[in-house]
Amino acid sequence: MILYHSLRPHPVLGAGREVRMFLHEKGLAVPMTDVDMMTGENRQQAFLAKNPTGQLPALELDDGRVLAEGVAICELFEDLHPEPPLVGRSPEEKAQTRMWLRRCEFGITENIVNGFRFDEGKEFWKGRGRVLPEAADGLKAIARDKLRWLDGAMAGHEFIVGERFTLADVVLFVALEFAEMVGQPLDPELTRVAAWKARIGSRPSAAASLC
Amino acid sequence: MILYHSLRPHPVLGAGREVRMFLHEKGLAVPMTDVDMMTGENRQQAFLAKNPTGQLPALELDDGRVLAEGVAICELFEDLHPEPPLVGRSPEEKAQTRMWLRRCEFGITENIVNGFRFDEGKEFWKGRGRVLPEAADGLKAIARDKLRWLDGAMAGHEFIVGERFTLADVVLFVALEFAEMVGQPLDPELTRVAAWKARIGSRPSAAASLC
Repeated sequence: MILYHSLRPHPVLGAGREVRMFLHEKGLAVPMTDVDMMTGENRQQAFLAKNPTGQLPALELDDGRVLAEGVAICELFEDLHPEPPLVGRSPEEKAQTRMWLRRCEFGITENIVNGFRFDEGKEFWKGRGRVLPEAADGLKAIARDKLRWLDGAMAGHEFIVGERFTLADVVLFVALEFAEMVGQPLDPELTRVAAWKARIGSRPSAAASLC
Repeated sequence: MILYHSLRPHPVLGAGREVRMFLHEKGLAVPMTDVDMMTGENRQQAFLAKNPTGQLPALELDDGRVLAEGVAICELFEDLHPEPPLVGRSPEEKAQTRMWLRRCEFGITENIVNGFRFDEGKEFWKGRGRVLPEAADGLKAIARDKLRWLDGAMAGHEFIVGERFTLADVVLFVALEFAEMVGQPLDPELTRVAAWKARIGSRPSAAASLC
């Protein structure tokens, strides 16, 4: 297997950090190839031959097939290597993780990323998909609304789903570090989310996934 | 188990059709309770005691815990009842389905639903979350862009992922029927997607999930 990712323009802002962090938590080492998003290397023929959408991260399997979408790639590693469980041990645990992951993604992380794409990132995104500058402020505001909701929901929770560290923690943490670097810092009033973010940030996988 | 869903204002426009269709494809019967979104029954105390977010659909497990998020509920039924496989038989098949599902959701279905919420649906959504009228046209346009991309990607595909009928077909089909009823009809030039939609619509589960 080979994981294609991008460390540029910065490991926090590139593509694939959630997969790198997940792999570190699993204790798995997968060969990685850096594809430079900044120069559009992922939109050039060599990479498009592997993944016609040009998306990063992407995982080339041993048979040559290529899978995209970071969360789908993480779930693949969970299915191949169940221990330690980062989605869940039972079907009910897995469902609980996926529920929280979806709340984080549809409510928070996707709005952070699109808020950036349609605003500070819009020059970079030109020609890579439609940008909606008029939507940027509102999407960022929805992300803040949902983070405030999450802060309340986390009362008594050590991790997003409660007592277990999961893929939901990885995905939200990576997105909040991204947010901080692009002018969407976490509201310091959200003390539960801030404390949780510091806890996740102190795990060895947080530092290890920066390269 | 009890599945909470909403058949109002119409089975296509309510909440939970993707789960009803998935269960029919699995050959599973789960007791269902209709919670009327239109009158805000899902925002009243009796339902909030079950699911504090008020979200529909939701699944009450035998131990009283409640799970939300339609796709997470479908994946739970896949884990509990693997046959027939609607996510996949192997880890690689599952990953492929999840990759396509995510492309459909982040690119198409979420933009259709938010395009509606922020425009025709904005009076209904008042008080249920921030609405961004200024984003509505652009989000609908992104959904159309991605459907056009999908039409190209489906050359030679019987189903979204290729040769297998999966959860991705269920989720996109349900969203496109919703789109049609809220003024976002499929562009008839997208002949592959249109033919696929007719194929999915002829499955018994499509009609069975209307009640």
